[in-house]
Amino acid sequence: MNGNFTYCNPTKLYFGKDALDGLKEELPKYGKNVLLVYGGGSIKKNGIYDKVIAILKECGKNIYEDAGVMPNPTTDKLNEGVMRANKAKADLILAVGGGSVCDYAKAVSVSVNCNDDPWEKYFIRFEEPTCEIIPVGCVLTMVGTGSEMNGGSVITNHAQKLKIGHVFGDNVFPKFSVMNPEFTFTLPKYQMISGIYDIMSHILEQYFSGTDDNTSDYISEGLLRSLIHSADIAVENPTDYEARSNIMWTATWALNTLVAKGKTTDWMVHMLGQAVAAHTDATHGMTLSAVTMPYYKYILPYGTAKFARYAVNVWGVDARGKTQEQTALDGLAAMEKWMRKIGLVMNITDLGATKEMLDGMVKSTLIMDGGYKVFTESDVRAVLKASY
Amino acid sequence: MNGNFTYCNPTKLYFGKDALDGLKEELPKYGKNVLLVYGGGSIKKNGIYDKVIAILKECGKNIYEDAGVMPNPTTDKLNEGVMRANKAKADLILAVGGGSVCDYAKAVSVSVNCNDDPWEKYFIRFEEPTCEIIPVGCVLTMVGTGSEMNGGSVITNHAQKLKIGHVFGDNVFPKFSVMNPEFTFTLPKYQMISGIYDIMSHILEQYFSGTDDNTSDYISEGLLRSLIHSADIAVENPTDYEARSNIMWTATWALNTLVAKGKTTDWMVHMLGQAVAAHTDATHGMTLSAVTMPYYKYILPYGTAKFARYAVNVWGVDARGKTQEQTALDGLAAMEKWMRKIGLVMNITDLGATKEMLDGMVKSTLIMDGGYKVFTESDVRAVLKASY
Repeated sequence: MNGNFTYCNPTKLYFGKDALDGLKEELPKYGKNVLLVYGGGSIKKNGIYDKVIAILKECGKNIYEDAGVMPNPTTDKLNEGVMRANKAKADLILAVGGGSVCDYAKAVSVSVNCNDDPWEKYFIRFEEPTCEIIPVGCVLTMVGTGSEMNGGSVITNHAQKLKIGHVFGDNVFPKFSVMNPEFTFTLPKYQMISGIYDIMSHILEQYFSGTDDNTSDYISEGLLRSLIHSADIAVENPTDYEARSNIMWTATWALNTLVAKGKTTDWMVHMLGQAVAAHTDATHGMTLSAVTMPYYKYILPYGTAKFARYAVNVWGVDARGKTQEQTALDGLAAMEKWMRKIGLVMNITDLGATKEMLDGMVKSTLIMDGGYKVFTESDVRAVLKASY
Repeated sequence: MNGNFTYCNPTKLYFGKDALDGLKEELPKYGKNVLLVYGGGSIKKNGIYDKVIAILKECGKNIYEDAGVMPNPTTDKLNEGVMRANKAKADLILAVGGGSVCDYAKAVSVSVNCNDDPWEKYFIRFEEPTCEIIPVGCVLTMVGTGSEMNGGSVITNHAQKLKIGHVFGDNVFPKFSVMNPEFTFTLPKYQMISGIYDIMSHILEQYFSGTDDNTSDYISEGLLRSLIHSADIAVENPTDYEARSNIMWTATWALNTLVAKGKTTDWMVHMLGQAVAAHTDATHGMTLSAVTMPYYKYILPYGTAKFARYAVNVWGVDARGKTQEQTALDGLAAMEKWMRKIGLVMNITDLGATKEMLDGMVKSTLIMDGGYKVFTESDVRAVLKASY
């Protein structure tokens, strides 16, 4: 466990088939005015909206709505949310949805009382909030981002063709999250698989960094093995409660700061994927899967030992009689085979990326410096080109 | 992930070589009067005491001391601590030591304002505190119990020959814990190994329960593999920072409620070990190691599939061509070999248990019902007899 770090995660999780009852414990802790944030309205079809409204009314809340949060929440929508929260004098922002809705709720929570332009302050200058933060609670209906137990918030600026994430401190973490695996049963298969790969990518972005021996990597390997095992079951049978509950729990622990402890972390797959998303508006998890193989094959020579360990400990590759490089390559081959099997998108062409977008995507890729190779713009270009 | 559960762990951890600086951030949050709790005085020899005192003074605190906390803190000591905390009008109890010191600090924290007999209320009737709780902070100098990030508190009543643990709710968890792996370097080898086995046993008590497919078990396997790997290094070289930091981090996550989520959990090794400790006053981890093999061999037929999984995923047993039972037995054999190699005590005779103590130990063993076999008194007797 390298370096000095702190760990503090104050989010309270309510998990299981009766998790929504947790709302009744939490709501009385906050004032009367609740801004209910949600997406395209699927929660009205599957009955979750009605259940949440009933509990809000039972707890005597004034309900204000902010619907229509899109998969990649925009700066325009953020400005609208701030206006709505202000009008409602919101005491609590209740996000009902997936990662985008939770991300958006957090962005609104730090922007309502912000005297600056939130996009500039938080997403361009990466500053911390200095204003009063409105508390956020989440009811999760889609898994992947881990947004239910972290300070992450990703916002897209269409005018600037930028999709940028800010990881806020624990004062911005949701105060509570309601996690009922059954709420994810009705999700379309494409979204489920996309979420599964988002989880996997989160773990790998933290795993593929550093050369030390670190407990975080062992926890990551356990999470990855559980995820692969449960994903195989859920793809066959999306209403398998055990599998969906494991995927939901893994998603949370994949990105709630735990497995990053003592690590430098990488995050280049996300930077590349976000650049693709900013130009195509494709689903987050699929942008990650589409750039993964080109990226990992590109950096493998710089982190061969770790890729070999990954092959053996996660994919069960038999290393006997092989060079470290061959073991590492066999691990990526096993991963690629599995990715194709569960139906992930394996190139950015299938996500709508055209050759004309390449220059723009290269320009909007932020370069992080924690992985096995610190990228130059030409490395970014090479990987994106190989991703078509 | 079976059933409904909540997860909430508010303890803030400061980890690394500069972790003690965290005290300067935390102390200003509390009132002037600090009750400094510690054990036999080893912290005076290794300089930790002086460093803590300097920071307390720098933060302008009134320091009151409560020294001499013994390895198995007693009801008599608890009563003394309550008296001292009262006298000090303590605003914060700062525990500097290992699990016993942290456990004791928590017991004092819920007893100072308790109108009832704390032993009867918390450890016999397992009631939750209804009084004001004094906040606790920890500076860890010994690892194993996980007490730095949980609500556990184990107290021994010599008159009644009982050693009983109460797992308190998150309102009793330490507010913060300071974890500098270097503080554990000077610990005698016997104590280090004992702590390592305490960690292993904590994970196994949660792992060996249930028959479902559960992410918690995958995390547990990761923690176990990291622990075994780092223990081997630390036994050879106790000042290997990487190994000691991994062991310290694993200890915390082994028993901070995470890997119990969705599980029934067992805890019979602890119940048997605590009965042995109540009669012999032996070191906690060694009482666990001494009863482990007889216990697991006894319950193996009731949980063969899980013991076989354990053999493969944790001990690397090759299952090809073997029955599930043979794989399971090979796993326990590998575990036993490792336990002997690192120097664990493998029978209770070596801990001072005499044949005359058997009846008393059987009587003082609490029976838990979450593992693969719900014990009767005759099962307890059989395992304890096999442990001599």
